[in-house]
Amino acid sequence: MNVAEQMKQLALEAKQAATTMAELSSAVKNDLLCRMAAALESKTSQLQQENEKDLQAARDNGLSSAMIDRLVLNDDRITAMADGLREVAALPDPVGEVTGMWRRPNGIQVGRMRIPLGVIGIIFESRPNVTADAAALCLKSGNAVVLRGGSEAIHSNTAIGAILKNELKGMGLPEAALQVVTTTDRQAVNELLKLDEEIDLIIPRGGEGLIRFVSENSHIPVIKHYKGVCHTFVDADADTDMATEICLNAKVQRPGVCNAMETLLIHKDIAETFVPHIARAMKQHKVELRGCPATCALTDDAVAATEADWDEEYLDLILAVRVVDNLDQAIDHIRRHTSLHTEVIVTSNYANAQKFTRSVNSSVTMVNASSRFSDGNQLGLGAEIGISTTKLHSFGPMGLEDLTTRKFVVFGDGQVRP
Amino acid sequence: MNVAEQMKQLALEAKQAATTMAELSSAVKNDLLCRMAAALESKTSQLQQENEKDLQAARDNGLSSAMIDRLVLNDDRITAMADGLREVAALPDPVGEVTGMWRRPNGIQVGRMRIPLGVIGIIFESRPNVTADAAALCLKSGNAVVLRGGSEAIHSNTAIGAILKNELKGMGLPEAALQVVTTTDRQAVNELLKLDEEIDLIIPRGGEGLIRFVSENSHIPVIKHYKGVCHTFVDADADTDMATEICLNAKVQRPGVCNAMETLLIHKDIAETFVPHIARAMKQHKVELRGCPATCALTDDAVAATEADWDEEYLDLILAVRVVDNLDQAIDHIRRHTSLHTEVIVTSNYANAQKFTRSVNSSVTMVNASSRFSDGNQLGLGAEIGISTTKLHSFGPMGLEDLTTRKFVVFGDGQVRP
Repeated sequence: MNVAEQMKQLALEAKQAATTMAELSSAVKNDLLCRMAAALESKTSQLQQENEKDLQAARDNGLSSAMIDRLVLNDDRITAMADGLREVAALPDPVGEVTGMWRRPNGIQVGRMRIPLGVIGIIFESRPNVTADAAALCLKSGNAVVLRGGSEAIHSNTAIGAILKNELKGMGLPEAALQVVTTTDRQAVNELLKLDEEIDLIIPRGGEGLIRFVSENSHIPVIKHYKGVCHTFVDADADTDMATEICLNAKVQRPGVCNAMETLLIHKDIAETFVPHIARAMKQHKVELRGCPATCALTDDAVAATEADWDEEYLDLILAVRVVDNLDQAIDHIRRHTSLHTEVIVTSNYANAQKFTRSVNSSVTMVNASSRFSDGNQLGLGAEIGISTTKLHSFGPMGLEDLTTRKFVVFGDGQVRP
Repeated sequence: MNVAEQMKQLALEAKQAATTMAELSSAVKNDLLCRMAAALESKTSQLQQENEKDLQAARDNGLSSAMIDRLVLNDDRITAMADGLREVAALPDPVGEVTGMWRRPNGIQVGRMRIPLGVIGIIFESRPNVTADAAALCLKSGNAVVLRGGSEAIHSNTAIGAILKNELKGMGLPEAALQVVTTTDRQAVNELLKLDEEIDLIIPRGGEGLIRFVSENSHIPVIKHYKGVCHTFVDADADTDMATEICLNAKVQRPGVCNAMETLLIHKDIAETFVPHIARAMKQHKVELRGCPATCALTDDAVAATEADWDEEYLDLILAVRVVDNLDQAIDHIRRHTSLHTEVIVTSNYANAQKFTRSVNSSVTMVNASSRFSDGNQLGLGAEIGISTTKLHSFGPMGLEDLTTRKFVVFGDGQVRP
């Protein structure tokens, strides 16, 4: 079989397995995930032997130490994978939930019931723990899953997949509910992306290049997350201590992630005191500031921002700062430069909080909290399969529910249309 | 400007208008739709003058009388368009609904709020009333809309669009919230489908050819409805009078629509009496039967079905009939041949009704009712913008809510991540 036939076969098997998975009770699915967790822990040395092959190849190929670190499956990381599986087992099962039911004048009862999407394809890079994390979420929500990781983690991903599939088999469930693509042929991704009859959704996880490639080449719906240019607006009425804490947390607590703040907007009425104050605080944390002219006039610690700075996702200790005339100008700035990820207002003014919440239509809109809370776990969705910055199907952090859809169920007693 | 630049410009204007539309109160939107309805009624003769140009061209081009009939804007149809606008005005506004709100252990409150999608593109064929119907649903749900109808209705569509836009203007609202593509250049569709930065969703309405063209060429998410191969399974325990009524209604009440029954499955335990009975009844309504061998052995009124019949959407007085061994075989048949539209079981058996409802994951799954109820109006969604037979975002008949998405709103009092 060539790679196109292989992918078709693997996806077809997954589609068949999906009908079985869709009907499993929560108890069976939870049992499965707990067994998978135990299996990963009991096969640590086997896993680490395979992982060592990837690490050796990485060293041979001269990968950076950061890249190599991401590949490592040490004891702690294996425990974390197993704990992740158990956490998903403990989450409520979205399948079968009836989200509404009503009666029509002719007596038919109409409801909407959550069902799995079917087969979910995950295309990801480097970290092998994604194999277990994504499998857990897809299986718990009654779906089959096709996983395609990067070639640099091929031995680790294949080993994790084999251990997890063995538990499906042990429970008499179809192994094809979890398909790990074991070829490193790059063409495999292109072939998978054509299988819109077999695969219902593609979620790419990785850098912007991967996400663009997948969304431009897919015949299957894709849920995308490009980048997070998160804004924080400090209003004239902000409690400046609160604003300082929120801004520092949003910028420096973990600058390399998508929910870190990239642009700070400051109301002109407090700029004279707040700009020098926050500039000093940021400097203590080694944050480089790129300011608008008004900002640069108020502090020596900022260099002049260029137009490109307002669209930049630094993912680093760099912050763009702009003084704005009022809330409307802040909202206008956000609308022009948003990546639809997360925007924050810090204010004590009720009307402004309401207006910001209503007018800013990014996927997460916050009042008086750090943008770092924009995460499935932090918002209470349980585990997270990704963050969508496009609006169809899901918008913002995605949990189990986002891996389902709803069908209509209709109960009649013989009604026909006049 | 060439057509690519024209489409880009028009979509950009719509995107700007969308931010205004998103913030309108329900009262203002309802007022707008009612004014639009009144304007259509008061400008009937102007509308009919423009419509006559399309009719003349249709006659000159030798279009079929059925095609010409679809184009006609007589007084009744204009009244129906106006009534449609008023009906949408009377529907509840989905925008701003908070579908859930919870408090996290650290005290932040997290909710999900419905917001408009932004800009919706509708690509449609022939019937000019779609201009008004689709505009009403998109505007009521706070979106801007770009409408591209067929060239055969260009004068009618343009005239309706101008009348509706005039009411936006009259209320001081951005006219670009309703964009009607007035060029008949076929390239316009291709150009629109590339504008994924400006347009959030494309809904094609028309034949399978149009829908395939749009979904294969779009860079924008598309909600598709290919076809309706609707099944009805008459169980061993069915009330045969009820089954007969439901089957006749599903097949003959309006055979040319997507929610008409195309395949009838009959449990073998009642086949001996029910097959001849339903065959006679269908014959009286001039329905041609295509049966499996068991069916053909029980009635002279059926011709032998070929394998292709099980996948056929006849949209005509033709019905495929198969005798099955049991519920499992019926479900298996449906899974192999479903278009994910609508499936019905007629049964008096509680466990079988439950099993069918749970195991059949088409977009509408019914017990003891005619498949003809599979329609947004009949199911209680108010007006319908389309029926989705793909699972992402919407599945089944789509109403106003399906033209929205949900953002997260977070209310804190200074929380930061530890």
